[in-house]
Amino acid sequence: MSVHLRPEEIEAESFRIIDAEAGSHSWGPDQWPVVRRVIHTSADFDYARSMVFSPDAVPRALAALKAGRGIVTDTTMALSGIAKPRLERFGISVSCFVADPDVARRAREQGITRSILALRAGASDRGNGIFVIGNAPTALFELIRLVREEGLRPDLVVGLPVGFVGAAESKEALLALEHEVPEVPFITNRGRKGGSNVAAAVVNALLIMAMEG
Amino acid sequence: MSVHLRPEEIEAESFRIIDAEAGSHSWGPDQWPVVRRVIHTSADFDYARSMVFSPDAVPRALAALKAGRGIVTDTTMALSGIAKPRLERFGISVSCFVADPDVARRAREQGITRSILALRAGASDRGNGIFVIGNAPTALFELIRLVREEGLRPDLVVGLPVGFVGAAESKEALLALEHEVPEVPFITNRGRKGGSNVAAAVVNALLIMAMEG
Repeated sequence: MSVHLRPEEIEAESFRIIDAEAGSHSWGPDQWPVVRRVIHTSADFDYARSMVFSPDAVPRALAALKAGRGIVTDTTMALSGIAKPRLERFGISVSCFVADPDVARRAREQGITRSILALRAGASDRGNGIFVIGNAPTALFELIRLVREEGLRPDLVVGLPVGFVGAAESKEALLALEHEVPEVPFITNRGRKGGSNVAAAVVNALLIMAMEG
Repeated sequence: MSVHLRPEEIEAESFRIIDAEAGSHSWGPDQWPVVRRVIHTSADFDYARSMVFSPDAVPRALAALKAGRGIVTDTTMALSGIAKPRLERFGISVSCFVADPDVARRAREQGITRSILALRAGASDRGNGIFVIGNAPTALFELIRLVREEGLRPDLVVGLPVGFVGAAESKEALLALEHEVPEVPFITNRGRKGGSNVAAAVVNALLIMAMEG
């Protein structure tokens, strides 16, 4: 029974099953560890077709992690899902302002989502370069606005909001950004699916690669 | 553009889309708010077919929440995803022992998953009655063992582990428990899918119903 496998054996066996069931694919050798961990987290092979990487997204992400660039997440769930010991190795801070009382107060006053104001708060610290959005389309739209209108140049955008209102559209806007501001690397997917767990899985896959390489 | 909707309008519009696309279904009026929030969180209509409720699971879950029974989760992500203000309303504590240093040390010594020992730690406090498992099949197997062999009688099991090794099997074991110990209510699904986000969504849907009813 699987319950008797050791933890490291469970993950290795999971990856063997994913490799076998995914069959042949065209992901690069630095992309597949990311896609595979997303499938591992979600048990959803849709991601083998829907994920999109900007050119050189993975090497640039690894460079940003090794340089200790700060991570901002849109939810405390995504923050929780990122493996802390790996962050410590590179001296990376991770923050999320969505539960900040000041953010909540201003969101109520202005009638906009807390996610927008939380993203803006994270971007105001120039030590932060890696933006991880797993829930709120409004946060991804705001990040795109900061890039287009205010000159923000993230080291990496992990854009995986989920849902029925705006999620797919926000990711299409991120994909379109490549033509306008090609120097911003991103990892995203097409469609409604995504989530804090999936976004955290992308970061964890990159952290493992950064530790190995 | 959706980004201009107010937060409460985004959720209402999402639910309207889910209701429309789900079409006719046979979920009870107290089950559909749970299934719908899971779909809202995952953007995955598979859950409209795969979720399973034991008889009276929802009314019994609402009674447990209103009685302030403690919640134990298998991951800090699931803990993060549960809406804290709603817990405060009922005086419910939520805990997760997976990052506990003592749990980590004993897991290494014994060569078993931290999830097993963390679940056991949570179950040892008789104030805890609601077990939320969104990640680790080993935690759900251990919970089932505690029910069968040690007389544990949870107020509710939210059993939604995800993955390729043991997740589906652990949920089949939970379903089979109904014949042996029918007094333990559960909410689960069939298959590999699940996750901390989905498990938290079930709890949040129940908390909203408890506040309304």
